[in-house]
Amino acid sequence: MKGFEEAKLTLINNVTSTFNLIWAVMRHAPNAHIIKLGTLGEYGTPNIDIEEGWIDIEHKGRKDRFLYPRQGSSLYHTTKIHDTDLLWFYVRTYGLTVTDLMQGPVYGVFTSETQEHPELLPWFDYDDIYGTVVNRFVVQAVAGIPLTVYGKGGQTRGFLNIRDTLQSIILVAENRPKPGQMRILNQFTEQFNIVEIAEMVKEAGTSLGIEVKVAHLENPRIELEEHYYKAADDGLTELGLKPTILTEHVLHEMLAYAQKHQHLIDKTLIMPRVRWSHALQHV
Amino acid sequence: MKGFEEAKLTLINNVTSTFNLIWAVMRHAPNAHIIKLGTLGEYGTPNIDIEEGWIDIEHKGRKDRFLYPRQGSSLYHTTKIHDTDLLWFYVRTYGLTVTDLMQGPVYGVFTSETQEHPELLPWFDYDDIYGTVVNRFVVQAVAGIPLTVYGKGGQTRGFLNIRDTLQSIILVAENRPKPGQMRILNQFTEQFNIVEIAEMVKEAGTSLGIEVKVAHLENPRIELEEHYYKAADDGLTELGLKPTILTEHVLHEMLAYAQKHQHLIDKTLIMPRVRWSHALQHV
Repeated sequence: MKGFEEAKLTLINNVTSTFNLIWAVMRHAPNAHIIKLGTLGEYGTPNIDIEEGWIDIEHKGRKDRFLYPRQGSSLYHTTKIHDTDLLWFYVRTYGLTVTDLMQGPVYGVFTSETQEHPELLPWFDYDDIYGTVVNRFVVQAVAGIPLTVYGKGGQTRGFLNIRDTLQSIILVAENRPKPGQMRILNQFTEQFNIVEIAEMVKEAGTSLGIEVKVAHLENPRIELEEHYYKAADDGLTELGLKPTILTEHVLHEMLAYAQKHQHLIDKTLIMPRVRWSHALQHV
Repeated sequence: MKGFEEAKLTLINNVTSTFNLIWAVMRHAPNAHIIKLGTLGEYGTPNIDIEEGWIDIEHKGRKDRFLYPRQGSSLYHTTKIHDTDLLWFYVRTYGLTVTDLMQGPVYGVFTSETQEHPELLPWFDYDDIYGTVVNRFVVQAVAGIPLTVYGKGGQTRGFLNIRDTLQSIILVAENRPKPGQMRILNQFTEQFNIVEIAEMVKEAGTSLGIEVKVAHLENPRIELEEHYYKAADDGLTELGLKPTILTEHVLHEMLAYAQKHQHLIDKTLIMPRVRWSHALQHV
């Protein structure tokens, strides 16, 4: 953990803003369709298939349907679970209408909008705290830093291109759930583990003449480095999502972008600075 | 709901105080055994048997163990779910040691301590917000108010005498879980529905010469009035809990206590003042 104040801010910020949003909608626009960007990280890494938000449980000869069990691997993800529980309470009790998008780690920088004007480019995090792994590896490759695989690198997640984040939100906004429904969709297009991503970035870099090395660092997090992972993603496909695949072309585009801005890369932000496995490092 | 400010206070108070406690223990007493009074209300009224905190799920040929799914019937219960998720995150990640007691509605006023001195008597709520149903019915019987059954009165819960609340906490404190374990125990001794409780109070009152009527009011809450309910309670029995049963003698003791203090009963606190089924009554 970083420390008490950071952890408390994470908790209070997340639950309070979701709570305030819920009440604002109840007061002023009770029929509004709330689209929430949640995270696939709420599910953690269970040893059974991850469904889209819900699971039917048969137990001792009886059946019921429940929110799919959630146990995230960080406090941040735990507060996202709080958000889900809050939304589900207000949906089932007071009839709000919600789509909760359980999004995987996003990569990429370009969308159809950004090609119209560079000022529409999104924020691009590559640091150890906010940076997602594909973006980080691309920057590390360009900066000549061995790719920072944590531990064995068998950590598997569902990933998506930022183009598909936007495509998904548009599809969801254009296809409302039923009034009073809490629709939960898993938002990702492909599953990879960290070693596979490192290898793809290495190959894409090599073909551009960049020498890329891969390092296995001591893992600063508490997480399984080898585990089962199979998440459903039918919902957005049924709404019409056309996946943007993580091809060598996509990686070349990102590597070229990082090379163009190479002089801006702050190398002190690459290596892990927080040991999440130590609760009290800053106390 | 009462209103935005009351709801926000409920949310922030509960999650912040659990969070602060967790960090205080991590900093100053990481091996302490945290005993938390949770509530059976976290589970809601599922259509499958309620286990003690955990459930083994078999799904598409694979298995894993999860927190038993929780969906409480009020914001208060939802914040208790938040507490459970927070504790479970810090237990599995940083090795805290916790017993979470999922307590049902408590009734009664006397314990072995209170018989030593009347100043040791606990608070006795009989109002519409904080009062639990057995205590409320006893006061209503003495005050000559028909017992306030909400709707059909088939709402079933697990109940316990205040003597068994204390007995349970003592047993749990004397029997620590393993270090780094999150032990969850359901804390109740008997299941009743509301009509059964009303009938028991009526019979006990009648045998003392009190005329008791039963009324079915429009339900101010959103809850199932007829449902399956079967909760496990083996854990505390195994630790040695000797249940105090809700006998006519126990009800006579409570009725006599209410009669003794009859002049203190505020009849304006009996009927439901908050329509929980209306989200925005005070907005």
